Amino acid sequence: MAATFTQPHAHGRLFSTSPVAKPTRKLLSPFTVRMSLQENGPSVAVVGVTGAVGQEFLSVLTDRDFPYRSIKMLASKRSAGKQMTFEGRNYTVEELTADSFDGVDIALFSAGGSISKQFGPAAVEKGTIVVDNSSAFRMVDGVPLVIPEVNPQAMHGIKVGMGKGALIANPNCSTIICLMAATPLHQRAKVLRMVVSTYQAASGAGAAAMEELELQTREVLEGKPPTCNIFSQQYAFNLFSHNAPVQPNGYNEEEMKLVKETRKIWSDLDVKVTATCIRVPVMRAHAESVNLQFEKPLDEDTAREILKNAAGVVVIDDRASNHFPTPLEVSNKDDVAVGRIRQDLSQEGNHGLDIFVCGDQIRKGAALNAIQIAEMLL
Amino acid sequence: MAATFTQPHAHGRLFSTSPVAKPTRKLLSPFTVRMSLQENGPSVAVVGVTGAVGQEFLSVLTDRDFPYRSIKMLASKRSAGKQMTFEGRNYTVEELTADSFDGVDIALFSAGGSISKQFGPAAVEKGTIVVDNSSAFRMVDGVPLVIPEVNPQAMHGIKVGMGKGALIANPNCSTIICLMAATPLHQRAKVLRMVVSTYQAASGAGAAAMEELELQTREVLEGKPPTCNIFSQQYAFNLFSHNAPVQPNGYNEEEMKLVKETRKIWSDLDVKVTATCIRVPVMRAHAESVNLQFEKPLDEDTAREILKNAAGVVVIDDRASNHFPTPLEVSNKDDVAVGRIRQDLSQEGNHGLDIFVCGDQIRKGAALNAIQIAEMLL
Repeated sequence: MAATFTQPHAHGRLFSTSPVAKPTRKLLSPFTVRMSLQENGPSVAVVGVTGAVGQEFLSVLTDRDFPYRSIKMLASKRSAGKQMTFEGRNYTVEELTADSFDGVDIALFSAGGSISKQFGPAAVEKGTIVVDNSSAFRMVDGVPLVIPEVNPQAMHGIKVGMGKGALIANPNCSTIICLMAATPLHQRAKVLRMVVSTYQAASGAGAAAMEELELQTREVLEGKPPTCNIFSQQYAFNLFSHNAPVQPNGYNEEEMKLVKETRKIWSDLDVKVTATCIRVPVMRAHAESVNLQFEKPLDEDTAREILKNAAGVVVIDDRASNHFPTPLEVSNKDDVAVGRIRQDLSQEGNHGLDIFVCGDQIRKGAALNAIQIAEMLL
Repeated sequence: MAATFTQPHAHGRLFSTSPVAKPTRKLLSPFTVRMSLQENGPSVAVVGVTGAVGQEFLSVLTDRDFPYRSIKMLASKRSAGKQMTFEGRNYTVEELTADSFDGVDIALFSAGGSISKQFGPAAVEKGTIVVDNSSAFRMVDGVPLVIPEVNPQAMHGIKVGMGKGALIANPNCSTIICLMAATPLHQRAKVLRMVVSTYQAASGAGAAAMEELELQTREVLEGKPPTCNIFSQQYAFNLFSHNAPVQPNGYNEEEMKLVKETRKIWSDLDVKVTATCIRVPVMRAHAESVNLQFEKPLDEDTAREILKNAAGVVVIDDRASNHFPTPLEVSNKDDVAVGRIRQDLSQEGNHGLDIFVCGDQIRKGAALNAIQIAEMLL
């Protein structure tokens, strides 16, 4: 995976000229010395720092003035030795080993499930609290699966300084983005069943997938055959069923994450979820069409008010001007946007709603959520 | 709308190099003299011949050896006088007027709802059978709304030579593509409720929208602001709620077409449908994620067999190699492709299925369906 250390948002450049993309993230020079370097802050390690999410971890740490005493940049042997600058200091990327976690309070992992399985438990043994962005431990009993706005109680007192390590799992991006909007409604009217269709961005498959989408698009526009390395088929001007392996029940693993993680996060084994996950030629934000069936009636005006008051959610629902959430408008944004809020005509007695949700896959779908979890550890 | 007379598929060139796009349409030189020019064939008029669907009408007439005695090329005043070649003969595009239909047996309309309202009834008065691709008459009582594979009986004996004109409506593209797959299952197990999320191509908004998507994509890749003439926002590397006006109930008109046309085509006022219609940056084929709830149990293996035997449907459902329908693979194809056929985990007792459907919006979603209707008139 290509590293873009000094330009962590190089992949976002396709959108920098857009009249509707308005990144609100504070843009800081790499030479700014931040107050976040604090003697009494935790020592932090970023595992998979050269990847799309690893780079976003750094951006979010800066944006949120996350305090730290020290920070280790960890990656595979291939990236070890590379130089990078973060908050005005120079760092050398170190190879991830079992010894990497000596003295580390918080490790932010985003290097794939096998790396998490190999090094996560070792880090915990050393007293590190691991916030893991992979799917490796999400469904393991006893491992909290946390969206801070949704189920902070699942952290049950895990803190830096408690004298022992712990594993905390970051949910899948599609689950986070869906539940940011669905949970406030669930809390009011209890969701019985949810039918989700996703429109997923390239970023979910990493920086190399984003590069491939851009490359393929250039190739197709030039009349050349598209390069298919990351995905097995043309992605430019096309869409396809999510590339995760398909299980014997016909659902792919991405879809089953939505089914299973929702149950765990809501502590509700009875909630019925079905999902169809599709990749669309969009760079870094996911969209989801969500049909909800409620135990109690919930009218659309009440739902809209609930969502307007929900933390981390912004309502974009302007019917007159046909302005609703789009992936581009939420790219590089923290909040999940929800719109197309309407009473489902196919259900009676106000027991159903349709909504359309968009969220930045790399940010709230991954890095931001993990760092919000890390903030709860302090 | 830009006219591309001698290159009716100029807009498809983005895909001509794709390793997965395999157009199966018979490609004929414009100088081929076809047997379809027959003394005893009907006289035909194509209304809106310079548009994307109008051009496809001509391709499909050729592909299917549609017999005709004469053919009139009709368009707006702006396009009148332009020269074109079709099946080895030269034609001059004529301005559409109330007199255009003298002696015309079949008129294929695709010039928008207002043109259909203005000229359709006048054509019928002159004894012409109008096959109308617009939404103008679809929900009018007594106007058959027909998908030939689904409800041919709705044509109730309308034929060329019966001595009077008639109006027949072509359903909306999303409805046709959805019902091609849903109907064979409905006939077996009765659909009670359907939740549809669409992934709609540029072509549904016409040739100019396809050109804008291509232009915008080039601009964004060059770091320029995207040109937004047809749509109000960036379409390249983005997606947005369908641009049809939103009704007071929160559904846009495209979604309500799915709701209402399904009821009429199935002659089932009780079927519950909800839909969320989204435009994605794809050129000419729509995709739809469809969740089905049945009165009777229907297992996925039976459903797959039913679909394999359904006319106009091809099953692409290879779980092992993650090969399912894509817009690119169905572009320029007649058949609607269906895959991701699986038992819906959120419904009990095999009463639910999820499917994913793709169909060429210009072809089966518009021109092909209309010409299949025209064939039934002979």
